[in-house]
Amino acid sequence: MKRRDRNGEIWDFEQEMSSISSRDGVILGLDGGTTSTVCICMPLMSFSQKLPEPLPILARAIAGCSNHNSVGETAARETLEQVMAEVLTKSNSNRSAVRAVCLAVSGVNHPTDQQRILDWLRDIFPKHVKLFVQNDAVAALASGTMGKLHGCVLIAGTGTISYGFTEDGREARAAGAGPVLGDWGSGYGIAAQALTAVVRAHDGRGPQTALTSSILDILNLSSPDELIGWTYADPSWARIAALVPLVVSCAEAGDQVANQILHDSVKDLAESVKAVVRRLGLCGEESFYTYQDVPGASFLLHIDRHEDKKMNTEGVPIANGMDPFPLVMVGGVLEANKRWDIGNEVIKRICESYPGVHPVRPKVEPAVGAALLAWTFLKKESEAKPAT
Amino acid sequence: MKRRDRNGEIWDFEQEMSSISSRDGVILGLDGGTTSTVCICMPLMSFSQKLPEPLPILARAIAGCSNHNSVGETAARETLEQVMAEVLTKSNSNRSAVRAVCLAVSGVNHPTDQQRILDWLRDIFPKHVKLFVQNDAVAALASGTMGKLHGCVLIAGTGTISYGFTEDGREARAAGAGPVLGDWGSGYGIAAQALTAVVRAHDGRGPQTALTSSILDILNLSSPDELIGWTYADPSWARIAALVPLVVSCAEAGDQVANQILHDSVKDLAESVKAVVRRLGLCGEESFYTYQDVPGASFLLHIDRHEDKKMNTEGVPIANGMDPFPLVMVGGVLEANKRWDIGNEVIKRICESYPGVHPVRPKVEPAVGAALLAWTFLKKESEAKPAT
Repeated sequence: MKRRDRNGEIWDFEQEMSSISSRDGVILGLDGGTTSTVCICMPLMSFSQKLPEPLPILARAIAGCSNHNSVGETAARETLEQVMAEVLTKSNSNRSAVRAVCLAVSGVNHPTDQQRILDWLRDIFPKHVKLFVQNDAVAALASGTMGKLHGCVLIAGTGTISYGFTEDGREARAAGAGPVLGDWGSGYGIAAQALTAVVRAHDGRGPQTALTSSILDILNLSSPDELIGWTYADPSWARIAALVPLVVSCAEAGDQVANQILHDSVKDLAESVKAVVRRLGLCGEESFYTYQDVPGASFLLHIDRHEDKKMNTEGVPIANGMDPFPLVMVGGVLEANKRWDIGNEVIKRICESYPGVHPVRPKVEPAVGAALLAWTFLKKESEAKPAT
Repeated sequence: MKRRDRNGEIWDFEQEMSSISSRDGVILGLDGGTTSTVCICMPLMSFSQKLPEPLPILARAIAGCSNHNSVGETAARETLEQVMAEVLTKSNSNRSAVRAVCLAVSGVNHPTDQQRILDWLRDIFPKHVKLFVQNDAVAALASGTMGKLHGCVLIAGTGTISYGFTEDGREARAAGAGPVLGDWGSGYGIAAQALTAVVRAHDGRGPQTALTSSILDILNLSSPDELIGWTYADPSWARIAALVPLVVSCAEAGDQVANQILHDSVKDLAESVKAVVRRLGLCGEESFYTYQDVPGASFLLHIDRHEDKKMNTEGVPIANGMDPFPLVMVGGVLEANKRWDIGNEVIKRICESYPGVHPVRPKVEPAVGAALLAWTFLKKESEAKPAT
């Protein structure tokens, strides 16, 4: 096998390897978010049996941000290569044992982004290795559906995105465009609005809020004027998003401004899921109902009051379909460990329009989801081949 | 005189100077915005006569951004020093002829910012030179009031800020905290919301808008997905703000989304002025009125419907004072050369609450305003001295 090493020193360990840890080869799954990058290595599992529980993970490696929009392309690529080399070393494995790689990285928004990453992955791995490049949202979905691409995922951490797939292979996304382009429901969005509220209270444009003393205290600043210098001293989105727990505490303590910010975030996050569900018809075909005809008409009346209400030409309401679909929920903003439960509020809001929504909190991490995506693909491929 | 040169090569020209252009010395006025820095040199004018019209400007020099929050402190300082050296060369003058310097730079938000700049200015100029460091908004105000610090200024270019002074020396500001901290009425804010509207229309969260084809056309992109890469490829705020004329065109052509963005901007800009006027009482003391007592009661009724309405304990409306005050309006967003006149709409809105507002479009640029500030200070100082 011809080696296409571009970065000799990273892959040096391979020459020292005497054995391959997993006889049937391994799969790499990588989740590259705005804050950190996680890569896992799992053995290639049998296609004919149910997935084992727990899943066998040979090794896990972590690195920093690999979003090329945030750190630039060279740094992003170095981080990705480094973390893959590390997970192979830790697994006592090497590139020739790899059967498939799934790189799920944030900042992949366009086929050209995908192709650029595929091109350099191709240079690193032997020709027979199957390569997949996806937005990190796709791996998050797979982490909740154990590799199946069906349903919708909502990520809300530092950033936010909503991504959906139908069983027949159509896909759609909403949000995920970063802080400049209106991802207001994200951790960054929530925190930036809290900082804005402090500035507005200080200069007389907005109401007083408990956020002022909380935020100044934690940042060790003496006046809201100093927030400006603090904000622009470091462009990292994650540093701003780290203030979210403080906004939640203030809201829980009854601060109205903090509560409004969280309610707005819930509305934004629910909107991005609903946009995806609507475009893909994930809830099934839309149906015509009249209040008289339908059992549970009072419930339909309830749907009717919301923004998704539609009327047919005779003014009879059209309800959304009732089909169930999984909604995988991922990210610090949606974690259900607080009294003010943002994730739960988002589900309630979606449920009003799409009662078939079935929320899933994944038991494995997105990097494992990425590996399961690759495994599912190899499985389909093996099923398509005639038996030998 | 001992020279405190820190940057010998910049000031080398001084040794070649044989004459000083202005017998009584010169004043430097500098306006450092987010997009560019302008420095002018004017002769010290007589304190006993009216200001000449036009003002005698010996030279003018331009450089790039000198906002330390945007380009970092070292780069900001180099730019400032360079542009001052250049304007002195062009004036055929040198540092020993300088009587006063007023540096008005954006990003000066706190006394520590001011002190840091004063400290290094002190190293550059001889001890007898009077030095002033202000936020660039202060120079913009002075450009409309010919050096007098009274009234309010609204700047809306790439960024936005509102700054006000009372005749007895109190001051207040609102906004000016940059894009992360909620300056939504600025050129950057308008353009970022337009980009957001395009993304939302594309992913199904918002209504279709003519902004999509206009923006994709001008940026030579084929899909809204590509906007994400374009946006984060370059962090310059001015690059985004450059899309404002396009938003105005779409609004003029009847696009509802573009119109809403401009209306929101008008509301935000008016709010920041009103916050300053309210805090400083620039409109005079608040007064108690009853509808029966006051001539023009229907007008008071009109004020009463707006957010500034207040009631006394008996539910009788308290109107804002009617005192006149100048509102100096500066920046590309407020320029009155379009059918959709943002500046005019802002004035209308302020006028509803503060009918004493007297809009001023300055005839000289902010750098001249900065020089006039320094001149006014020297004038006051000379008047305070007993005649010799």
